Amino acid sequence: MKRQFGPTNAMYPQPIILISTISKEGKDNIMTAAWTTNAGRDNSSIAISIGGDKLSFRNILQTKDFVINIPGTDLLGQSDFCGQNPGEEIDKFSLTGLTPLESVLIRSKMVKECPINIECRLKETFKVDSANLIIGQAVKVHIDEKILEEGLIDFNRFKPMVYAQKTYFSLGEELGKRGLSQK
Amino acid sequence: MKRQFGPTNAMYPQPIILISTISKEGKDNIMTAAWTTNAGRDNSSIAISIGGDKLSFRNILQTKDFVINIPGTDLLGQSDFCGQNPGEEIDKFSLTGLTPLESVLIRSKMVKECPINIECRLKETFKVDSANLIIGQAVKVHIDEKILEEGLIDFNRFKPMVYAQKTYFSLGEELGKRGLSQK
Repeated sequence: MKRQFGPTNAMYPQPIILISTISKEGKDNIMTAAWTTNAGRDNSSIAISIGGDKLSFRNILQTKDFVINIPGTDLLGQSDFCGQNPGEEIDKFSLTGLTPLESVLIRSKMVKECPINIECRLKETFKVDSANLIIGQAVKVHIDEKILEEGLIDFNRFKPMVYAQKTYFSLGEELGKRGLSQK
Repeated sequence: MKRQFGPTNAMYPQPIILISTISKEGKDNIMTAAWTTNAGRDNSSIAISIGGDKLSFRNILQTKDFVINIPGTDLLGQSDFCGQNPGEEIDKFSLTGLTPLESVLIRSKMVKECPINIECRLKETFKVDSANLIIGQAVKVHIDEKILEEGLIDFNRFKPMVYAQKTYFSLGEELGKRGLSQK
């Protein structure tokens, strides 16, 4: 028996990412997000939903770039902090102890402690409800050698966080590879 | 030390969902997807990236609706099958043994065996690279009483699947609630 609810956000689970941006005056910021997805194959586009009132949104419009940093479970506390506190008055890098690292192709800096960093250039923005769907194009991807095995990510070594119903989870056990039903 | 890659899809992990649609002639289909996210708060909008060549995309354009069904790990084989086989020539409901269930507000049917079903009306589509970002508005959400505890989903009873690098994973252990850094 199922219970019926009205319109509600019930898409679970989602990835936890850190979005790092820089203002035109050069002030870095980090924002935590979960409403994000790969969006296009041929140009490696990524979509992120961000409220229009967010500092990160204004920064992205100014500099036309941002970095998607994927934290491991060891960055749980820092990731939560960057999602709970607006960046206008504070320096989230220094308060969390996270390290800003120069990107290769864009102005926004990477979060060094995250094993995956995706340098993105802003492609376009779409309005959805009162939020903005930011479309970024991945232009350079950095992956820590420690989590790579023959060019692929080893999820026994890298544990990304998964978010559902305002709760952080770890990634669970491997169930099988795509195509398992065809064998 | 990090290794540099060119543009590549590296957003991990993503949720596994089943999208059920119906053609204007009344033929049901199920497609598996992972590139999806909540997109807007006030109208509970959802974004899904779908290739323009997909039957599900054509169905959605025809009927202007679709259902997002969230499977548990017990539907691993069926979920993989629906992602591996195009629906033009086959009936995925009968081949997988999944049960089509009438929706309340829309024409596309729900997948009964999935503990969460989100009836969505098509709001708009945006072109991103060669894919299409489908924006749906959740109009009715169905959640199995068995996974609910005081109106919230209990992720000890419902185990959604998480997808990363062409591999299915279970949801891992709970790490903490949003706001944990503020305590």
